[in-house]
Amino acid sequence: MMENFSINKTDQYCFTDTEREAFYKTVYSRRDVRGEFSDKKIAGDVLARILMAAHYAPSVGFMQPWNFIVIRSEATKQKIHGLFEKANDEAADMFQPEQQKVYKNLKLEGILEAPVNICVTCDRDRAGPVVIGRTHHAGMDVYSSVCAVENLWLAARAEGLGLGWVSIINHKALKETLKLPKRVVPVAYLCLGYVSHFHDRPELETANWRRRLDLADLVRFDTFDGKADDDYSKELIGTIHDQQQELQAGAPPDKA
Amino acid sequence: MMENFSINKTDQYCFTDTEREAFYKTVYSRRDVRGEFSDKKIAGDVLARILMAAHYAPSVGFMQPWNFIVIRSEATKQKIHGLFEKANDEAADMFQPEQQKVYKNLKLEGILEAPVNICVTCDRDRAGPVVIGRTHHAGMDVYSSVCAVENLWLAARAEGLGLGWVSIINHKALKETLKLPKRVVPVAYLCLGYVSHFHDRPELETANWRRRLDLADLVRFDTFDGKADDDYSKELIGTIHDQQQELQAGAPPDKA
Repeated sequence: MMENFSINKTDQYCFTDTEREAFYKTVYSRRDVRGEFSDKKIAGDVLARILMAAHYAPSVGFMQPWNFIVIRSEATKQKIHGLFEKANDEAADMFQPEQQKVYKNLKLEGILEAPVNICVTCDRDRAGPVVIGRTHHAGMDVYSSVCAVENLWLAARAEGLGLGWVSIINHKALKETLKLPKRVVPVAYLCLGYVSHFHDRPELETANWRRRLDLADLVRFDTFDGKADDDYSKELIGTIHDQQQELQAGAPPDKA
Repeated sequence: MMENFSINKTDQYCFTDTEREAFYKTVYSRRDVRGEFSDKKIAGDVLARILMAAHYAPSVGFMQPWNFIVIRSEATKQKIHGLFEKANDEAADMFQPEQQKVYKNLKLEGILEAPVNICVTCDRDRAGPVVIGRTHHAGMDVYSSVCAVENLWLAARAEGLGLGWVSIINHKALKETLKLPKRVVPVAYLCLGYVSHFHDRPELETANWRRRLDLADLVRFDTFDGKADDDYSKELIGTIHDQQQELQAGAPPDKA
């Protein structure tokens, strides 16, 4: 399948520095877009490539449990936007008073502004009742659909498009609106389009809602409480610390 | 944060054809690796970059709910391998007789051969009880950890490393073995290392377990049963069909 990607087998397995840097550029410039959508039309070949990247995500037992519902009609967007507004009002009430003020000022979706919305689903019965790798964890098929979402998101970014994941929606109502059969669950509701610009940092970071955590604190060894206790793990933690400092100062980790 | 990625803001938003192709190369050459691991040591800076890509995954409410437990000790790997063997025997019994034969011949993990194993977890209490975007779907935090897994997987591929997701493990036993606190759930158990080669296609496809589905059949319009009924959607479906044919014949969709 991949023969033509490069001239010979060895090249196929290896990435050049430039290729690796391009991958990291995609990861570090990806944003959850809510407010910067333009109505510029997405050409069919671009949307096809983005969906194809999602379709080539990993899936448990090669189940490929996803569907992609492409929504462009104003009427359906309006219905979904109504579901968001209802859920968002309920959500605001759950926060403490001082948080509520910040929360209500956050723009959390771009349903009406984005030219294309996509609902990514999971068909729990796509491959019969017994699926390789799903035998001991029933949710593995849904995780596969989430991997498809992340591929789709990164592909959108590589194509210069912004994407936002709208999770403040009642899933039962969403399922009814999109007429999903019983066996199919909605996994993600996505807004996709060209944008005026991408933010340098996540908006919740800029709004001081939460800070970027230090990865060095999140990496453990052997067990959950295991700290770095040999040369390899101590060096790893030091390198992670340095890479994140460089990254937050503006350089991708490849240059660090 | 991203200023130094390129010379000016415009470049930062756009990807060159070469960069976009490099991203797609990562997506289309990623494999679920089980049997080709070498014991070649993973340098600290490489492992740090792979973990950092995972840490910059999207997360609901910027929660960053993940931990990464890096497992290198033979003793712990042996314990986990024991859990896999137990679960895999149980799993084999669930299939029909003719499927069982194929199933038992599939290699489904590389726990002992891979130099590094990584358990990616989700701390359900990372950001307090009320989290932006998790108010209407409690599993959004786990989905965030799955996005981190997919970033990690793609980063590994861009670094020339193979990765396999071992899902045939009892999660309760895994949680005990890795001493996860009550609030922390295991999301993925991953095997990471250099490989002798990457397969051209998923092994379950080559083994005729399941075929690659046609994306054109999985894309719907407006609702789950909605077929292409205008010029845009008809052209999209046609393009998807053509791109997948090209891709299966060996070309990345960018060249299609």
